[in-house]
Amino acid sequence: MANNPYLADFPILARKVNGHQLCYLDNAATSQKPQVVIDRINHYYTDENANIHRGTHTLAQQATQAYEAVRDHVQHFLNAASREEIVFTRSTTEGLNWLARQWGLSHLQAGDEIVISLLEHHSNLVPWQQVAKKTGAHLRYLAANQQGLIDLAAAEGIINARTKIVSITQVSNVLGSRQPIKQLTALAHEHGAVMIVDAAQSAPHMAIDVQDLDCDFMAFSAHKMLGPTGVGVLYGKQALLDDMSPEFYGGEMVEEVTEQSATFKQGALRFEAGTQNIAGVIAFGSALSYLQQVGFEQIENQDRQLVSYAWPRLQKLNGVQLYGSNDPSDHNGIISFNLDGLHPHDVATIFDDEGIAIRAGQHCAQPLLHYLSLSATCRASFYFYNTIEDVDRLLAAIVDTQHFFNRHLSRESLI
Amino acid sequence: MANNPYLADFPILARKVNGHQLCYLDNAATSQKPQVVIDRINHYYTDENANIHRGTHTLAQQATQAYEAVRDHVQHFLNAASREEIVFTRSTTEGLNWLARQWGLSHLQAGDEIVISLLEHHSNLVPWQQVAKKTGAHLRYLAANQQGLIDLAAAEGIINARTKIVSITQVSNVLGSRQPIKQLTALAHEHGAVMIVDAAQSAPHMAIDVQDLDCDFMAFSAHKMLGPTGVGVLYGKQALLDDMSPEFYGGEMVEEVTEQSATFKQGALRFEAGTQNIAGVIAFGSALSYLQQVGFEQIENQDRQLVSYAWPRLQKLNGVQLYGSNDPSDHNGIISFNLDGLHPHDVATIFDDEGIAIRAGQHCAQPLLHYLSLSATCRASFYFYNTIEDVDRLLAAIVDTQHFFNRHLSRESLI
Repeated sequence: MANNPYLADFPILARKVNGHQLCYLDNAATSQKPQVVIDRINHYYTDENANIHRGTHTLAQQATQAYEAVRDHVQHFLNAASREEIVFTRSTTEGLNWLARQWGLSHLQAGDEIVISLLEHHSNLVPWQQVAKKTGAHLRYLAANQQGLIDLAAAEGIINARTKIVSITQVSNVLGSRQPIKQLTALAHEHGAVMIVDAAQSAPHMAIDVQDLDCDFMAFSAHKMLGPTGVGVLYGKQALLDDMSPEFYGGEMVEEVTEQSATFKQGALRFEAGTQNIAGVIAFGSALSYLQQVGFEQIENQDRQLVSYAWPRLQKLNGVQLYGSNDPSDHNGIISFNLDGLHPHDVATIFDDEGIAIRAGQHCAQPLLHYLSLSATCRASFYFYNTIEDVDRLLAAIVDTQHFFNRHLSRESLI
Repeated sequence: MANNPYLADFPILARKVNGHQLCYLDNAATSQKPQVVIDRINHYYTDENANIHRGTHTLAQQATQAYEAVRDHVQHFLNAASREEIVFTRSTTEGLNWLARQWGLSHLQAGDEIVISLLEHHSNLVPWQQVAKKTGAHLRYLAANQQGLIDLAAAEGIINARTKIVSITQVSNVLGSRQPIKQLTALAHEHGAVMIVDAAQSAPHMAIDVQDLDCDFMAFSAHKMLGPTGVGVLYGKQALLDDMSPEFYGGEMVEEVTEQSATFKQGALRFEAGTQNIAGVIAFGSALSYLQQVGFEQIENQDRQLVSYAWPRLQKLNGVQLYGSNDPSDHNGIISFNLDGLHPHDVATIFDDEGIAIRAGQHCAQPLLHYLSLSATCRASFYFYNTIEDVDRLLAAIVDTQHFFNRHLSRESLI
């Protein structure tokens, strides 16, 4: 880690786990936070903390300005047409659930079709099952090829005049594959369907331009992109957001309330009833600034370099199964694998003894794993602060683990 | 502030506003945070940060333990019967909206009655309007007397066999009056109705025992009781929570997911889909510990002392209108007032020049203000870290403000 230029910025990366320096390869679950983000939370609570929008006093005004400045920041980050298209949520999951309930329930009828893919995280799948059940709409799936990519030709056979909603992950959280969102959006729009993008795994790793994609809605989480836990963004085209009911009613989103009725504000605030995660949103602004300083070109480069270094070396090891694209540049930092004869949870536990944090399991994507005939995988997921040395530790841990569980095999036969 | 024993623990209280030391009297909107809470967030992000429940590695296990320990802590804090009765939300508003939608929509029919009071915050009012509109149920109101108290005799005339839900604030956020929740709960239960308590303003100020109150649900927010923004608690009796649908579907709350169906976990986790505000929940544990160290007896004492000192002095000033109970012990730290001829926003702005933060407006309680024939009030709201000196500054600012706007009156005539 000596030549890791980011080490000094991420205090947790210096910590020891089981006597070893932390090798954090669980970034698809959540990213670590740079000191500037932690400092921003500190500063908020030691110098600015107040409830926003409603107060005339200095603290309330400062906090409101800082919070609303992040809305502008996210607007520019996504190249959204208006700041009112940026709604703060708690998480990607919350954003997708709002869309399923508030958009889905009011726009779907029996016989309509919702199209998702087999690559979806449960949060972009179970809410649509619920809506399908309530409305009588059908939930249809786009399959993925061996490379983990949705086949556009096959999609043309599935997205049709009955399709009202298409909701697709931009990057698979299991395989790391990047989906052809722009083409899928065009296809959805051809048939008059609304296009939703789950950007939980993409927003941390690539520049996003919602106007270029032309998607109608997008949801992502701050915590996977250096920001605090408990903050998400729901992007929606203004006209569509205006046509959607809020999930929550309460303070801050109303105009006039009488005993039996109420009128509501327009724009993003209509969706932000009650006290928001003010500190979290403000610190998310610092996370965005840090990411933009690193630059998405550099982030994509580093993802590609780490996977390009790891992939052929993993392929050379005996007893290692790799999943997804054979092109390392289509992994966006995510490698799913299994070691022959070993349960992924055992592998993750052994790795942890070496201070290496990976994830093992079904990654909230059971239909995908079923489709791939897998019960679970190990997942190593990188971010720009990971290094070649991290990959070397991962590779060495794989060999050590195989050796540990297969003592009858020589170490040499495993390499 | 020299003899304020809490000053050292709350860094923001040392800050200057417009050249004056901050006099923070907006605690009913949000409380300030002690250093231990800020430190806990820091520690989480510099030493523990990981996504919870799903990981086998050390960081994930540590974060999960820390998060789940707060569930136990809240259980004991409320004297709930089980840890599974404690669900983490984003806010009081979120908890109340879940209840309105998930409990209300599935248990109400046309002709049923929902009973709330004229003291409710919009977050315990507008969601019920929406549910009433969708189900054909009637939304009925308990009035409050001049002291800001719900009249139990009148309540007996309104809560009846048609009542299915009674949802009442424990402490008014405008008047500070504490409602007879235990008696209202008994009355609701007599008629088979479910009792919901909005504890946003009470949980920070008094010990709560949900088994003693026997309420069915309760919602409150961390940020009003020293905790971070973006964290709330929804308490519900186990059998009732088990009978309620979750608001959100996604990762962490499912058991098995196939393409067309899913099964769900039992208990609190069923309501916590997606990545939660992990840092926020963990730091809320530190806030609870701090509050418990101060002690609710001491907190109630200080509320009473500050209002007892302020109230007769405010009464003696000319041109000051006071609202709510004449008994200073029934204000729970909240004083709403107006200065004759001055708009509350102007008053708050002038106070801010002196470094005094109060709130001015309708306090998200328009029906109450309408009932009181008020368009807005000034609200000074204390917490245990406020001092007699803070009250003196408030009193002096009132006199200064009246003098400023009424230069034709002598300063002496105002005192």
